[in-house]
Amino acid sequence: MDLDRILTRAASGWTDGSGPQADIVVSTRVRLARNLASKPFPHRMDGSSLEHLLAEVETAVEHLNEREKWSPFQLLRLEDMHDLDRRVLVEKHLVSLNLIAEPVGRAVVLRDDEMVSVMVNEEDHLRLQCLFPGLQLEEAWVAASGLDDCLEEQLGYAFSESRGYLTCCPTNTGTGLRASVMLHLPALIMAQGAGRVLSAINKLGLVVRGLYGEGTQAAGNLFQISNQVTLGHSEEDVIRNLHGIARQVVDQEARARRALMKEAPLQLEDRIGRAYGILSHARVLSGDEALKLWSDVRLGVDLGLLTDMPRAALNELIVSSCPCFLQRQAGRELASAECDALRAEIIRKTFTKNG
Amino acid sequence: MDLDRILTRAASGWTDGSGPQADIVVSTRVRLARNLASKPFPHRMDGSSLEHLLAEVETAVEHLNEREKWSPFQLLRLEDMHDLDRRVLVEKHLVSLNLIAEPVGRAVVLRDDEMVSVMVNEEDHLRLQCLFPGLQLEEAWVAASGLDDCLEEQLGYAFSESRGYLTCCPTNTGTGLRASVMLHLPALIMAQGAGRVLSAINKLGLVVRGLYGEGTQAAGNLFQISNQVTLGHSEEDVIRNLHGIARQVVDQEARARRALMKEAPLQLEDRIGRAYGILSHARVLSGDEALKLWSDVRLGVDLGLLTDMPRAALNELIVSSCPCFLQRQAGRELASAECDALRAEIIRKTFTKNG
Repeated sequence: MDLDRILTRAASGWTDGSGPQADIVVSTRVRLARNLASKPFPHRMDGSSLEHLLAEVETAVEHLNEREKWSPFQLLRLEDMHDLDRRVLVEKHLVSLNLIAEPVGRAVVLRDDEMVSVMVNEEDHLRLQCLFPGLQLEEAWVAASGLDDCLEEQLGYAFSESRGYLTCCPTNTGTGLRASVMLHLPALIMAQGAGRVLSAINKLGLVVRGLYGEGTQAAGNLFQISNQVTLGHSEEDVIRNLHGIARQVVDQEARARRALMKEAPLQLEDRIGRAYGILSHARVLSGDEALKLWSDVRLGVDLGLLTDMPRAALNELIVSSCPCFLQRQAGRELASAECDALRAEIIRKTFTKNG
Repeated sequence: MDLDRILTRAASGWTDGSGPQADIVVSTRVRLARNLASKPFPHRMDGSSLEHLLAEVETAVEHLNEREKWSPFQLLRLEDMHDLDRRVLVEKHLVSLNLIAEPVGRAVVLRDDEMVSVMVNEEDHLRLQCLFPGLQLEEAWVAASGLDDCLEEQLGYAFSESRGYLTCCPTNTGTGLRASVMLHLPALIMAQGAGRVLSAINKLGLVVRGLYGEGTQAAGNLFQISNQVTLGHSEEDVIRNLHGIARQVVDQEARARRALMKEAPLQLEDRIGRAYGILSHARVLSGDEALKLWSDVRLGVDLGLLTDMPRAALNELIVSSCPCFLQRQAGRELASAECDALRAEIIRKTFTKNG
């Protein structure tokens, strides 16, 4: 696997625009927190024991690759990378901000298609992640579970019969499972406002976050909803429950879209057309403005009003208009104004190519 | 001449985008106010004497057509037209609002190319008008003067050796000449603001008006500047003076454009690109917004940043996005929202055709 290729292409497995309900559900993520019984949690480990754990994981990955030659994994040590490259991995949703905060002794294991990855020595020793396009909670869970089984054969997990998988933070203990779906909810937001939508989802016992996880804004009308509880429910229950709620929100969004199309089709087409026109022709675009207009264009594509723009190309723009990805493309640090110009250029090219 | 053709085509002689300084000067107008010695001014005339004067003018026009067969004039009686048609003539700058306010006994004599016309029984018995593209004060004056000579042979003008041509309003007495140029001044407005530009032109002893004459706003950064004084100067002086001042303003605008291109080329291209994008894709456009964006696109064309859009097509949009012209196209009265939708459609088609 070529690290340079990962860092310069915006496309990942999750961006291809496929999967069930892909008109509303951008992606599905399943994450499992695992720890080795033989070691303290990462924040209590010194340099040499972090390094020792990395070596153990590397061996386990080799075993994995023996068995699954068709889709090789590779362990990438974060301390060997440039800081900009690490931040590109965050923008591609492959690692967390937390993992790169202290890169020494940290790594990510990546499958070639970027849909399966393992963060090593983040808050927990291992964080297995499956990131799939569309609404694929069951599929992502099966994939994560399969990887989990393989790793467990090689690595002695910390597991308690009464409490389940032990984790650094007690909120993850039990299944260690967090599942989430990234939803694009422009019509609900137009009809009800962000506040009402968020509080309705919160009342269902779920956490709602923006595009880049905890504490981030719901830019581009993108909302990540995930389960709160990891203890006292089976993995299947968690997955089934989240799937059910995601379907409800998807249905509400679909209903809101139909209502918009029926009640104010011209205003809707106008909004979508203007966003398309600006993204196609602007020379300066901030990240916030780009994502706001992106949302309108994405809605146009999903409603069949814009037929020439592939969903995948739009999804890739979520990544390729991020500041670190842009700077990696430019091959140097960019001032904010330079970033805005390059972002506009990349977006314009995408629209020209698919216009 | 086919009235229907005049009312349904946006193109006039002045819209073709030709003429000197056509990148800044949209059009030049020369108007001569004339009255017949044998009649009181129109506001003191009754129906039958208005009608009698129309008949006299009609005979004079026949004589004119005998001599200039290649470019026939036709007298159109306003009372024979639908109200909407009369308002389209105003939007095409062929007659004044004042002329159509009381259509009975009023007429317009139109040359086939719409560049020369005579309003009959407006404030004065005759208002000869030459409307040329670009900065052509001398040319328009020569054309108006030639027409004036021809008409004077047929009609006995009210003329005083000491005061010159007598007119209804004393401000027109003397030469009866008003000359004006329509300037597009986006860079000056960006650099200095409309207030400073207007007061600078006013200080030169000129009147500044918007696109539709007295009391109208300078929408689309379009300013009509004209001479104030008609008495005590020869026609040649008036024309030469206005030409000199117009050249000064044109030079200032050109300098402001060069400065913009040098100092903030990206911001300028961004502004122009966004306007182009919105006009190409919007589904709802108010007249004000359309003209504001039109100004940005026109600047892009005149700076060579947009190469596919002919200046003539843009000039025609000034007319074709007017509310009465739109309703004439639709063949019925339109609510304001319907007008905005049809305006967007017509503009979008122009941009698609020339994109």
